[in-house]
Amino acid sequence: MVAPQPTLDETFRALSDPTRRAVVQALGRGPASVSELAKPFEMALPSFLQHLRVLEDCGLVTTRKTGRVRTCTLRAEPLAAAGHWLEAQRTLWTKRLDQLDRLVLQLKDQEDNG
Amino acid sequence: MVAPQPTLDETFRALSDPTRRAVVQALGRGPASVSELAKPFEMALPSFLQHLRVLEDCGLVTTRKTGRVRTCTLRAEPLAAAGHWLEAQRTLWTKRLDQLDRLVLQLKDQEDNG
Repeated sequence: MVAPQPTLDETFRALSDPTRRAVVQALGRGPASVSELAKPFEMALPSFLQHLRVLEDCGLVTTRKTGRVRTCTLRAEPLAAAGHWLEAQRTLWTKRLDQLDRLVLQLKDQEDNG
Repeated sequence: MVAPQPTLDETFRALSDPTRRAVVQALGRGPASVSELAKPFEMALPSFLQHLRVLEDCGLVTTRKTGRVRTCTLRAEPLAAAGHWLEAQRTLWTKRLDQLDRLVLQLKDQEDNG
């Protein structure tokens, strides 16, 4: 089954929580079992599982059960999509600052020659 | 007054809404008045102002009132911080894939020479 493609809404909402960001960070180092992932957090397992469910529902994380172990894997695509959106804003912003710089130089030239 | 530095939690939460992302996108082209910003949205002004308030509260947008016009300006820092976080995850992820590639090549070498 193809994992659903999360929207930017879902990706940004999922990343707005420190526990979920820490899970994404941990999974960036490679797949891990739910119990390995939960270990660093001082939180009841059901609460941790809720966070994991948010990540799974929006497609940032896929899980697979083998015997009694559920292994989680990060999906890079939603992170890349969110990164691209932010990068696009930065490009727009930088372009605008460049235009302002040019304008200031033009005004300065006009003053010097005026 | 120094604008507050939004946390990643607040920045990602603010960006999890399409109207707020559209406002960020519009302000990337330069400062704009509230009425200019609100124009493209088919939404009652109070609802639009609520979105703007979220962006303002978390420091992504600053506003300044001159006479009867309130002008909004984008702050690049929170966007950059969110972008850096995503970029760091991508770096981690790419590094891991490189390591996997090397492992596959090593195993293949061992097979060829075994």
